Amino acid sequence: MVKIKDIADSLGTSVSTVSKALNNAADISEETKQKIITRALEAGYTPKARKHASLAANRKVCIFIENMDYENRDQFGYDLILGFRQSAILNNWSVDVIPSNLNAKLQNDYDKFMISNQYSGAFMIGFLMHSDYSLQFQKTQVPTVLFDNYIAGNPKVGYVGTDCNEGIELAVRHLRGLGHTKIAFLNGAKNAMVSDEQTQAFKRAMKLLDLYVDTHLIESGYYVPDCAKYHVPKFLDHGATAIICASDLIASGAISEVTKRGLRVPEDISIIGYDDMPLCLNLKPSLTTIRQDRLSLGKSAMTLLSCLINNIPISKSILRAELIVRESTSKCNPA
Amino acid sequence: MVKIKDIADSLGTSVSTVSKALNNAADISEETKQKIITRALEAGYTPKARKHASLAANRKVCIFIENMDYENRDQFGYDLILGFRQSAILNNWSVDVIPSNLNAKLQNDYDKFMISNQYSGAFMIGFLMHSDYSLQFQKTQVPTVLFDNYIAGNPKVGYVGTDCNEGIELAVRHLRGLGHTKIAFLNGAKNAMVSDEQTQAFKRAMKLLDLYVDTHLIESGYYVPDCAKYHVPKFLDHGATAIICASDLIASGAISEVTKRGLRVPEDISIIGYDDMPLCLNLKPSLTTIRQDRLSLGKSAMTLLSCLINNIPISKSILRAELIVRESTSKCNPA
Repeated sequence: MVKIKDIADSLGTSVSTVSKALNNAADISEETKQKIITRALEAGYTPKARKHASLAANRKVCIFIENMDYENRDQFGYDLILGFRQSAILNNWSVDVIPSNLNAKLQNDYDKFMISNQYSGAFMIGFLMHSDYSLQFQKTQVPTVLFDNYIAGNPKVGYVGTDCNEGIELAVRHLRGLGHTKIAFLNGAKNAMVSDEQTQAFKRAMKLLDLYVDTHLIESGYYVPDCAKYHVPKFLDHGATAIICASDLIASGAISEVTKRGLRVPEDISIIGYDDMPLCLNLKPSLTTIRQDRLSLGKSAMTLLSCLINNIPISKSILRAELIVRESTSKCNPA
Repeated sequence: MVKIKDIADSLGTSVSTVSKALNNAADISEETKQKIITRALEAGYTPKARKHASLAANRKVCIFIENMDYENRDQFGYDLILGFRQSAILNNWSVDVIPSNLNAKLQNDYDKFMISNQYSGAFMIGFLMHSDYSLQFQKTQVPTVLFDNYIAGNPKVGYVGTDCNEGIELAVRHLRGLGHTKIAFLNGAKNAMVSDEQTQAFKRAMKLLDLYVDTHLIESGYYVPDCAKYHVPKFLDHGATAIICASDLIASGAISEVTKRGLRVPEDISIIGYDDMPLCLNLKPSLTTIRQDRLSLGKSAMTLLSCLINNIPISKSILRAELIVRESTSKCNPA
């Protein structure tokens, strides 16, 4: 059990200030509150939805998560959930996290589940949009926010994600500035909305920057390092001098594969990842990557959910991408 | 001066309830507050930012508006501003509306103006994005939300608008369902981001629905009824049986022009507008149109501005479009 004193000490503030923040007292600033609540959540303290006399008793939302790890700071889902919680608590919502094997629940009627459990809305993370889910989300009347998935035609469902057009254009522009023209793109799973969009974004960016789109240099694998070994050799055989990967994990596999073939990153081959996970700093060389700001994604998901709950039918809320330049990219130096 | 009693009477509630709502008392529900504040704003009552002990004195944002009327309910800007104000007041922001001839101010440095007037952020409505504005918004450090305009690369600037892909696809789908295949698109001003996107959206929707894109049936005019007379004759000469217009005003001109040529709407020619302005109901026949929910757009603009102020770099917040079917469209009946 985390103690309020520990939180206060770590922030160099008093126990009474922390206590006030967690109880939504009127005499401290929003900024201080935000800082304290953030730290409290990070430390594993789960405050109740903040007291607010004008509130009805039940303000509950939930997060469904599958196909994604989230229990440690270095996993993709962790900051998504943390950001969502931060925004929720500042707006007096309590949050339950419901892990995986939702399948059964959804088949059992999503709306019925939500209503009988008195949830006002949900945030869906990590879902592959197979047909059962699509059907449920097309017809749901419960405010629902999807991460990286879009449902046409239902004003109760919104989408949050990072602008992959912006991100991939930044990456291609960076490589082109370094003299690369033969740029490969190694995508994640096929047939997910987000990967289709990323492939389109890659082609668009290449054309925009007057680079030739060579279809031998575009492949789809899976979101695991191992997929690199099936595709990187082909890229190299076709003369690629740089590879953009759809995740940092894939990029870590690409570095291994390139190295295994006796080539050096970045001297011979430049590599760019996607996400900016903590692992980027541990790789040798450290990884240049397209950053998804997961804390902000989580916050924007709760903001969007709150709009949907208030009948403001936002369908898409798109976050800026950023290119973080580290050691894995350098001047083109064809063999 | 609007009296609190008038507001109370119009809602069938008590003076004390209205007074509590306007003073953000703790013992009435958010829903009631929202209803009362909305009515108060509509009635011209401009409450101060609601009292909140934890607030610093200055929480001020502003709306810059040009090229757009907003003083009466039947003008485009009215509900945009009303929605923005509603959302602002619920979050303790006060709002100043700064009309037109901003030109001088911007040349005089936008950031300097904002900071010296202690504004935390701004919502920009009706701007044509000429080069001076673009430059200012590319480099601004002040959180800024643009209606229908997007600035690449600056995380302090966000964009709100209606999803024209969704809206125009709904319109084309509706017409195709009525048997129309020769569908024309009469756009507004050229070289504005929103009109370029609308032309793309029209072509995309036609292709998606297996309809031939005839370039003789796509034209750009201006956002005034008169522009119809330059383009509608050509559309008719090229066999169009339906015309989608980029605004309800343009559509009103198209109805006049079609009628002037001895044809009937909708029996001979179907016409669809864009916006769903109050004038749609006054036209003969009443106008089928692609609805922009301006109240929600205003609310989502304030929500986005608040995210930007809190360093959540959302670049796009896109609202659902809706097709409102009225009398101006019917079964295709080619002459």
